[in-house]
Amino acid sequence: MRWHFIARIIGILLIFLGLSMIAPLLISLHYHDLARDSFIRSMGITMVAGLILIILSKKLRSDNYINQKEGMATVALAWTAIGIFGALPFYFAPEFTNFIDAFFESVSGFTTTGSSVMTNIEGAAKSLLFWRSLIQWLGGMGIIVLSLAILPFLGVGGIQLYKAEVPSPVPDKLTPRLSDSAKILWVLYGVFTLIEIIFLLGGGMPLFEATCHALTTMPTGGFSPKNASIAQYNSAYFDYVIVLFMILAGINFSLHYQMLRGKTLAFWEDTECRFFLGLIIVLTLLVTWDIYGSVYTSIKDAFRFASFQVVSILTTTGFATTDYEKFPGLSQVILFICMFIGASAGSTGGGMKCARIIACYKYCYRELFKIIHPRSINHVKINNMVIPDEVLRSIMGFLALYVGLFVLSSILLAAMGVDMMTAFGAVAACIGNIGPGFGSVGPTENFAQLPIMGKWLLALCMLIGRLEIYTVIILFVPEFWKK
Amino acid sequence: MRWHFIARIIGILLIFLGLSMIAPLLISLHYHDLARDSFIRSMGITMVAGLILIILSKKLRSDNYINQKEGMATVALAWTAIGIFGALPFYFAPEFTNFIDAFFESVSGFTTTGSSVMTNIEGAAKSLLFWRSLIQWLGGMGIIVLSLAILPFLGVGGIQLYKAEVPSPVPDKLTPRLSDSAKILWVLYGVFTLIEIIFLLGGGMPLFEATCHALTTMPTGGFSPKNASIAQYNSAYFDYVIVLFMILAGINFSLHYQMLRGKTLAFWEDTECRFFLGLIIVLTLLVTWDIYGSVYTSIKDAFRFASFQVVSILTTTGFATTDYEKFPGLSQVILFICMFIGASAGSTGGGMKCARIIACYKYCYRELFKIIHPRSINHVKINNMVIPDEVLRSIMGFLALYVGLFVLSSILLAAMGVDMMTAFGAVAACIGNIGPGFGSVGPTENFAQLPIMGKWLLALCMLIGRLEIYTVIILFVPEFWKK
Repeated sequence: MRWHFIARIIGILLIFLGLSMIAPLLISLHYHDLARDSFIRSMGITMVAGLILIILSKKLRSDNYINQKEGMATVALAWTAIGIFGALPFYFAPEFTNFIDAFFESVSGFTTTGSSVMTNIEGAAKSLLFWRSLIQWLGGMGIIVLSLAILPFLGVGGIQLYKAEVPSPVPDKLTPRLSDSAKILWVLYGVFTLIEIIFLLGGGMPLFEATCHALTTMPTGGFSPKNASIAQYNSAYFDYVIVLFMILAGINFSLHYQMLRGKTLAFWEDTECRFFLGLIIVLTLLVTWDIYGSVYTSIKDAFRFASFQVVSILTTTGFATTDYEKFPGLSQVILFICMFIGASAGSTGGGMKCARIIACYKYCYRELFKIIHPRSINHVKINNMVIPDEVLRSIMGFLALYVGLFVLSSILLAAMGVDMMTAFGAVAACIGNIGPGFGSVGPTENFAQLPIMGKWLLALCMLIGRLEIYTVIILFVPEFWKK
Repeated sequence: MRWHFIARIIGILLIFLGLSMIAPLLISLHYHDLARDSFIRSMGITMVAGLILIILSKKLRSDNYINQKEGMATVALAWTAIGIFGALPFYFAPEFTNFIDAFFESVSGFTTTGSSVMTNIEGAAKSLLFWRSLIQWLGGMGIIVLSLAILPFLGVGGIQLYKAEVPSPVPDKLTPRLSDSAKILWVLYGVFTLIEIIFLLGGGMPLFEATCHALTTMPTGGFSPKNASIAQYNSAYFDYVIVLFMILAGINFSLHYQMLRGKTLAFWEDTECRFFLGLIIVLTLLVTWDIYGSVYTSIKDAFRFASFQVVSILTTTGFATTDYEKFPGLSQVILFICMFIGASAGSTGGGMKCARIIACYKYCYRELFKIIHPRSINHVKINNMVIPDEVLRSIMGFLALYVGLFVLSSILLAAMGVDMMTAFGAVAACIGNIGPGFGSVGPTENFAQLPIMGKWLLALCMLIGRLEIYTVIILFVPEFWKK
């Protein structure tokens, strides 16, 4: 393990993080709010820490490739470091009284989870609310490069599946410099964000709120500068605009790239995308049927709220336009299960990812087929490509680890005195990077009242979930540190 | 598919089923209760149906081995047929008003689940209560031969793992005659039942109740002739006696056989048994810690109730001595998770089975190890024996199908208007063959109020869970019926 490499990368990231604090600082100056000093201090500490790391570490040469182990350690440590330093503006602000709350909010931001411990959001400094949105947006950028460039290189969790599938924008070697193809996807991400801002402004949403919401839609984050989230506006226009952009954010970004390059049927030709969009349609219709009559008297309203909740949870965004805990059983069961399924691989969404669900289904079918024809050799195919057995093994391992992590974390959280439904809901929402859960962390409540140890645990869950589990868990395997 | 073979086997089983109705008939005559005619009619119909099947089908010769496909179809159809004919005594009795309730109770019995739709148990005819217990006991006999002789031959769900592990009492070929080794295990099963009856009598339980409880403990069934189940007696002695026999029932029966043949360390040398017993100890201590102070003021009571609920759910028996839904979050989370884990493979218990959980854990560890040492070849070992990759694949497929079945059935049940917690709890309890669930099917409630379609669904879940999923699901794969 060449620690100086890792230190240098983290140092560079911290410099960028410090620089990104200029944006909320300007907003603070504009609104004359109380967070100005908080940002100045945070920026100073972050930049100095970054500089120290850079000075102490050696220069990276372009022929110094990072190896797989170092890559994993870098990803996990970088995300943690950014969570810590990104928490400083919260910690120094009067709205926060202790570090764990600030850290929770920061990690929830950078992992694009969107679970919050802030109880009076509208009372907080505007610059702080902007920072909350910005870190989700930056987190989303991190995930795009992570899921389309870094993780395929590290061979983690069956995600290497996408290495072959995505023809152009994935580099074969992870160089210390970010590849050009990642930059193309970032431009796409930025353009989508901009278009959403324009759409929201067009509907009459104030510029500040439109920006904040767009910054948290595209990374499927879900932080809102409003206590009531999107429910605040009670507008069908805003609901559908946000549904549209949540769906776009939940699709593999390389498909957007293919679309732009003229492959108009890219969405349809991709098995995962078909599954993802099909799931949205089927589940929306089921929830509409379930809540029409029992909760909403008009079919239009039922469809509007059904589509929003399904898309918000399935894409792991976590915006709310209503309290789904007041829905009948079927809708609740569907939303709870959506928390585990998640969006597409290669998108900014979390959860298990549709591609893995598809692979798992085909894996099971093959097992049944093998019982009928024991001597048959048949491969699992997705998009007409054979999935190698080691990738399938990795995917099944991922799914098992996901469930195992869910079970273990739920037990730990419940051991801290949290009731069963809240424990299951909070852990599912944090590992899947969704935001709101069930029980006392539902869409109209927040995570503030959870025990301190529980917040640490859930912050860890967000990180593990965001980094595709293997990347973090492997650091706890003694074998990893040998020799 | 040689249907006449299958018909003959089912015919023979129906004759035995009809003969077994003599026992409750005698009890009915002894107590002069109202179920006498019900048993006479049921016996008549069942025997006639059995005879017709035998007459219409060809004679089985000892050289006519059943093939794998026929074996699967036989297992699934036989269990269903027995469920239907075993329901007749309930259907004809005044306590039941419709066939689905009778069928639900019968399937719940034969699959050793123990979920009940009877709301006034103590008001029912004693012979009917005895029948309820007897069918669980007979179901347990079926499971012993199924899990130790039939399924290994069919190669289902990674259970073939035990083929190699169990040296003596597993035959290599499934002949139309039951193997002698299965008979040895049945004797063991009978002796355990007898000893439990003696223990319960020794504590002052009336003979009828002692017999009923022993008949439902050994198959990890959980039907009780008392409305309040074991809570009725409020006796530490009965609680601990039943805990002991539930544990014995949850251990692989071939280990009991090995013990009797002088291998005194058999329990300790078996990885699964160590895991199973260790889990009971750890979870009992956790639940004791959780309910001591919050529910019980004495540590003795806390331990007694904790051990009973943990053992009852983990072994998938389902007896109740208290309402665990009034326990704090940790205990509830633990018990909910126990519903999925289940007892040992080769025992009468249900659920996923400890052996598969161990295999899954080792599978995940191997995946992590592979990331660290990509070129390493390392095998998953249990009991110092290498588990072949195809067995591991089968186990992972089983676990995925189990979860998939749980998810799908929960959605269907919720679509019938059942709330989320009840849907999750009822489905988990039925697939795992446990008995009580959560929500409105908790340990102090029952399944009577569920919608009719929900009862059919749950009865199907019991059958699928009991027959190790693959055996039933495969009948729905079109490929199975080709050629």
